[in-house]
Amino acid sequence: MKGLRILSCLLLSSVSYASVAADGCGSSVLPSWKDGESKTAIMDFVKQTTDKGSKGFVPVEDRIAVFDNDGTLWSEKPYYFQFVFAFDQIKAMAKDHPEWKTEAPFKYVLNDDLKSLFAGGVKALLPIIQATHSDMTVEAYQETVAKWLEAAKDPRFNKAYTDLTYKPMKEMLAFLQDNDFKTYIVSGGGVDFMRVWAPQAYNIPDEQIIGSAFKYKYAYNDGKPTIIKQGEILTIDDKAGKAENIAYIIGKKPILAVGNSDGDQAMMQWATSQPNAMAMIVHHTDEAREWKYDRKSDVGRLDKALDEANKRDDWHLIDMKDAWCEVY
Amino acid sequence: MKGLRILSCLLLSSVSYASVAADGCGSSVLPSWKDGESKTAIMDFVKQTTDKGSKGFVPVEDRIAVFDNDGTLWSEKPYYFQFVFAFDQIKAMAKDHPEWKTEAPFKYVLNDDLKSLFAGGVKALLPIIQATHSDMTVEAYQETVAKWLEAAKDPRFNKAYTDLTYKPMKEMLAFLQDNDFKTYIVSGGGVDFMRVWAPQAYNIPDEQIIGSAFKYKYAYNDGKPTIIKQGEILTIDDKAGKAENIAYIIGKKPILAVGNSDGDQAMMQWATSQPNAMAMIVHHTDEAREWKYDRKSDVGRLDKALDEANKRDDWHLIDMKDAWCEVY
Repeated sequence: MKGLRILSCLLLSSVSYASVAADGCGSSVLPSWKDGESKTAIMDFVKQTTDKGSKGFVPVEDRIAVFDNDGTLWSEKPYYFQFVFAFDQIKAMAKDHPEWKTEAPFKYVLNDDLKSLFAGGVKALLPIIQATHSDMTVEAYQETVAKWLEAAKDPRFNKAYTDLTYKPMKEMLAFLQDNDFKTYIVSGGGVDFMRVWAPQAYNIPDEQIIGSAFKYKYAYNDGKPTIIKQGEILTIDDKAGKAENIAYIIGKKPILAVGNSDGDQAMMQWATSQPNAMAMIVHHTDEAREWKYDRKSDVGRLDKALDEANKRDDWHLIDMKDAWCEVY
Repeated sequence: MKGLRILSCLLLSSVSYASVAADGCGSSVLPSWKDGESKTAIMDFVKQTTDKGSKGFVPVEDRIAVFDNDGTLWSEKPYYFQFVFAFDQIKAMAKDHPEWKTEAPFKYVLNDDLKSLFAGGVKALLPIIQATHSDMTVEAYQETVAKWLEAAKDPRFNKAYTDLTYKPMKEMLAFLQDNDFKTYIVSGGGVDFMRVWAPQAYNIPDEQIIGSAFKYKYAYNDGKPTIIKQGEILTIDDKAGKAENIAYIIGKKPILAVGNSDGDQAMMQWATSQPNAMAMIVHHTDEAREWKYDRKSDVGRLDKALDEANKRDDWHLIDMKDAWCEVY
């Protein structure tokens, strides 16, 4: 019997180890991460913050980790997926808005004239976001998003947008959650947009999703209360706004901040303005499996934050091409 | 041995029951609540929402309970304790502001002229709140609040303000927390003010405290990032603002909302605009042990919400005098 048990142990061990490649892919922890600096940084950070004997131990209530979404947890090229949603909605709504045929920026959407559409920057897109994201209840808006997500496909990868979430980052989130981290999304994307699909994709509940938002308006509505999304901006959750919203909504300084662009620099600075904290940056270096861009990209520009990462020991670059076994 | 075990069981039982009074005070669950409608409503609600076989079962992720603070979790008379803090600060700062001696509303504080001070309503107090709550880092502000709380005493009860939190309500919070409810504060009080002491008083973490706030401003500050409280209002978390902030920050409709005034009516309506939800109102009926006020009070006026409670089966009044064994 004892011999049999040893034999079965050996068999189990060999089965277990057989799937781990020489580069570390397939290992039991963070299986989509290759052995290397990034994986080591994550594992060391979790060990240090959760080991009671460690100098860098952090009590459970302070284990706050904040993640950008676009370009950090899912792809953002050729432009933010929420814009794809908005443009698709404009096209679907166009029959009720004949005036859009001649009115900027709507006509650019209807003519697929992306160059003119993006020429004025994100601010020039506000009328499009207002037309597709306001003057309706949160529920009605979210039903529309859900329906769109079911049908829409990314043209390059022919996948649903929610299938363009990064497998390694989802493993990182799960690893942190398993170690009693409270994981937050802090994204420039719309909070109501993300709440439709992000809880399931990342195991992050609605109340741990922070994003940009229009103002809300409560109405009693003859005994059937509603919350209507207004067309006026409540918050742009980007750059300094991310640190400010963390102060307002979370009220604690995160010990881990993960982003991919200069829009995340403030929250990464804020998080790492204390001992035992860490920042990580997803560096898009993989044009074959995903996209390659940094300093010169309009979407997800990584320039000043890249300089800061290169100077600081507590900021780590995740080289997508080198660090990840799989992307999606 | 068996006989001895039965005996010790009986002894333990009798010890346990001995402390329960005829009115239910001292029982193992909600010991500061007398047997009666309010206690029954709370216990039935928790049973219904947590029993998988129940029609009203609610999965853990949707067990969101929101509580007003002033007048619901701690006292608010003769006026909000945060105003006491602000007025004490004005007095402490007055030596550096000789102009306040002649400038309204500051001079009213310095002269203890409460009548003039409150004559303009809460809006007229804004300069006082700005002078004491802005143009400083969140940390510096919170240190000031913490120091004040250590020293200040309520004149009527000669207790620290944090000792004027309601024992029965803290038991209710703990009972909900034990049953996997996520308990939130949604208060007109300042979010940074409450975060100093409420986490310890109520076992509610910073990130589950929603309140009024001034705008925040992040600054890189030569590598030592700061978040400065500005003097411009970000949100007034009262009335419709409570429902709107719940939609924005929590993103789920609470299944339980507890308040004490018309300022809580919108969030109670919002919560109970779904099946299996409940609202409760702390009704201040106890002038001997606390305070007695409702329809005609300037602070914590309970008028329209009282009418609504009297009409609705899913809204319950907590008659402080009848329902609570102890107040503090």
